[in-house]
Amino acid sequence: MRILGIDPGTVNLGFGVVDGEEEMRVVDCGVVNVSPRVPMEMRLSALYERLGQIIAEHRPSEVAIEDPFIGHNVRSAFAIGRAQAIAILAAANQGLSVYYYSPATIKQQITGYGQSDKRQIQEMVKIQLGLSELPQPSDVADALAIAICHIQHSRLNRWLSERIPR
Amino acid sequence: MRILGIDPGTVNLGFGVVDGEEEMRVVDCGVVNVSPRVPMEMRLSALYERLGQIIAEHRPSEVAIEDPFIGHNVRSAFAIGRAQAIAILAAANQGLSVYYYSPATIKQQITGYGQSDKRQIQEMVKIQLGLSELPQPSDVADALAIAICHIQHSRLNRWLSERIPR
Repeated sequence: MRILGIDPGTVNLGFGVVDGEEEMRVVDCGVVNVSPRVPMEMRLSALYERLGQIIAEHRPSEVAIEDPFIGHNVRSAFAIGRAQAIAILAAANQGLSVYYYSPATIKQQITGYGQSDKRQIQEMVKIQLGLSELPQPSDVADALAIAICHIQHSRLNRWLSERIPR
Repeated sequence: MRILGIDPGTVNLGFGVVDGEEEMRVVDCGVVNVSPRVPMEMRLSALYERLGQIIAEHRPSEVAIEDPFIGHNVRSAFAIGRAQAIAILAAANQGLSVYYYSPATIKQQITGYGQSDKRQIQEMVKIQLGLSELPQPSDVADALAIAICHIQHSRLNRWLSERIPR
């Protein structure tokens, strides 16, 4: 399985493409950066186009996205909701299923602790993906963490479904 | 000028197409309703597709959308942000400019009072568009109000620009 993880934001959107067969491996990662000075419609168009390119280039099998239910103020909730919607639409329009994970679930899965900080996430992503350096900036580390989280969830589900009699 | 007004929501999205030459006139209005039981990616896809159809059918010159900066809780801010993003993208991908109005601005423009209630908005939209009945549901009235608000703002701007020496 190849997973595209997305950390949504309308200024910086982190993405990470991770292969999840046997060992996990980074295929590509980065930040889609759109200047906040550009009108919103151009920002969302640029985001949609760039995500479409990333999906077309790497052909992930599924998309995993951070879904922050709480803990943000209303203004940032609007911005994240917008970026999320564009990412979801870009995935759906290329026929991909989208999976949602809360920040606490992602942290719990990656570091074993739901309240871990950005540095701890970066450290654990580095170890789990066998990277030589800390993934930078933290948006990229978060996107990779989301992809890892989904791969591990999927593996667990597969393992369980093979063992639990129907 | 022909304006598409949008009251964003991921369950009920109100839209209203209003012609603004001399007398204002409703061309089309309604609610795009997507069941909340359907997965988010299908809801956003359906919303994007339906808005694309509305734009293609009525060819508005501009799009006006409600931009609620404050006064919502974080969960509803996510939902509105998502619906807003899809509407903005649908407009931008067909080359249309998007204009944003806060709920208070729309209410002030339509009823002369920034804190007016839904019923007052419906009454004033009915009068201003010469409708025989109150526009229902209130999402439709809101979308029409947004279109009216933009038409009146544009008229005022044109009037001013013709009279103020540069």
